[in-house]
Amino acid sequence: MLDASPFRSALTDAQSRVEAALEAGLPRPTGPEAPIAHAMRYATMGGGKRLRAFMVIETAKLFDVDPAGADRVAAAIECLHAYSLIHDDLPCMDDDDLRRGQPTVHIKWDEATAVLAGDALQTCAFALLADPATHDSAEVRVRLVASLAQAAGQHGMVGGQAADIAAETATTPATLADIEHIQSLKTGALIRWSAEAGAMLGQADAAQTRALTAYATALGLAFQIKDDLLDVEGDADAAGKRLRKDEAAGKATFVSLLGVEEARARALALAEEARSALAPFGAAADTLRDAATYIVTRQT
Amino acid sequence: MLDASPFRSALTDAQSRVEAALEAGLPRPTGPEAPIAHAMRYATMGGGKRLRAFMVIETAKLFDVDPAGADRVAAAIECLHAYSLIHDDLPCMDDDDLRRGQPTVHIKWDEATAVLAGDALQTCAFALLADPATHDSAEVRVRLVASLAQAAGQHGMVGGQAADIAAETATTPATLADIEHIQSLKTGALIRWSAEAGAMLGQADAAQTRALTAYATALGLAFQIKDDLLDVEGDADAAGKRLRKDEAAGKATFVSLLGVEEARARALALAEEARSALAPFGAAADTLRDAATYIVTRQT
Repeated sequence: MLDASPFRSALTDAQSRVEAALEAGLPRPTGPEAPIAHAMRYATMGGGKRLRAFMVIETAKLFDVDPAGADRVAAAIECLHAYSLIHDDLPCMDDDDLRRGQPTVHIKWDEATAVLAGDALQTCAFALLADPATHDSAEVRVRLVASLAQAAGQHGMVGGQAADIAAETATTPATLADIEHIQSLKTGALIRWSAEAGAMLGQADAAQTRALTAYATALGLAFQIKDDLLDVEGDADAAGKRLRKDEAAGKATFVSLLGVEEARARALALAEEARSALAPFGAAADTLRDAATYIVTRQT
Repeated sequence: MLDASPFRSALTDAQSRVEAALEAGLPRPTGPEAPIAHAMRYATMGGGKRLRAFMVIETAKLFDVDPAGADRVAAAIECLHAYSLIHDDLPCMDDDDLRRGQPTVHIKWDEATAVLAGDALQTCAFALLADPATHDSAEVRVRLVASLAQAAGQHGMVGGQAADIAAETATTPATLADIEHIQSLKTGALIRWSAEAGAMLGQADAAQTRALTAYATALGLAFQIKDDLLDVEGDADAAGKRLRKDEAAGKATFVSLLGVEEARARALALAEEARSALAPFGAAADTLRDAATYIVTRQT
């Protein structure tokens, strides 16, 4: 049903715009350090849903922001996200060989290249945000940097990864509150930042920013619950990665704690909550509303 | 001779100031993600020469910059430096067990903690620079971020690490030009940034900035040549790390290419070149001049 929708065309548009911004913004492979640049491009430009880029670009539209600036911010969040995936896939972390149906960076190159390419992608995210081409106002650019550092750091994404590792080795089983805390940091923080980025670029007022934060908070949680459902119900070929790892590892997930039916109902309710949070923006936010529907109905 | 000098007291002062700024600026260990915060503090607050912090703080003095802001910038560059050491020490990179006489992070904790603590320290460096407490002007803060991203990324420090790895596996032996290129990126870029940071904080004119860049370029190269000399001549107990690794690995260094005598002469000449570059600042730059002397006469 969503296939011919404005949402689908907005998503396709965001995907091609962020690919172009990455092509322009990533370092070119030259000299003896070229393998790192190749690995950075491989990890960021291999497709993916581009959900974070979509949210940056679509929330920026609500405030009539310069599209070229929004594209650079979208490229920055995709660099940050790709860095986290490269490091997460390392043997000492999740030890994954496949990502989107392709060999992970440490398999295609080696571990040293994967560590360095991830490191350089994090650096590149901040470089893209700080560059004058992103926004005329230094105040806006530095706020993007500060907030992304907050979302990515020890009280954000990296903290969530650490808490996730701690939960796996804990002597008491993780509770629903633990899993929600981990999700809110590990994947939630960057999704919230992506929705708030449009408001930052557009220098939106506090009420508008709060509406987008509420939207992204509900949507991020719905996304993770759906991910857990797909891990149990999904098709590994379609997903392009190993599935049922959590179950095999005896790891607590939304599905193991809530059951399939309750998890599904929770995801649908959160998608509805996300859509409702966009009320202040009227019809202008329809593609963002449809994104919430897509997230809980997707098959990969 | 330098022991009772203004240089020694300035270095000690910079060391205690940056420790305090790190104590205040690093995340506190709480919740299930606490091990990462502990590892971040362990890696940054375990001492070290603090040469980069010293250069930030001393170049900031030339322009009467708010000392509290300079301390935060000094903490940022030490976070960035510590992140690079943690990742460099990993088994897939240099595989080092000791750093400053203490177990490296992946030995004291594990590899996953080392990857994440390094990642979070890089993030923390940008967070410190972007924060309004660092400087009143958003323009200055965002320029610090952009220039550090340049110095740390694929065309700076990480590029140097990649080129260094490439040189080790290359079929043709590295030349002096190769080694200078690698050094200029791998350790030179952050040293140059540290000296330029004071000029950025003080919104110095182009001639003043160029003088500091020339100083730091010569000093950075002198530092690396002296490091190579210490690797051959030094005492492992005093250094707190493994020595003669380069020789054991058959790796080209300034010493293997130039010989001990020529390398020593080159380092002394570079220190003199660094001192001369500071002429525009007169006696106000005496501690920075003494730093150049210290760098080529140090025993660890």
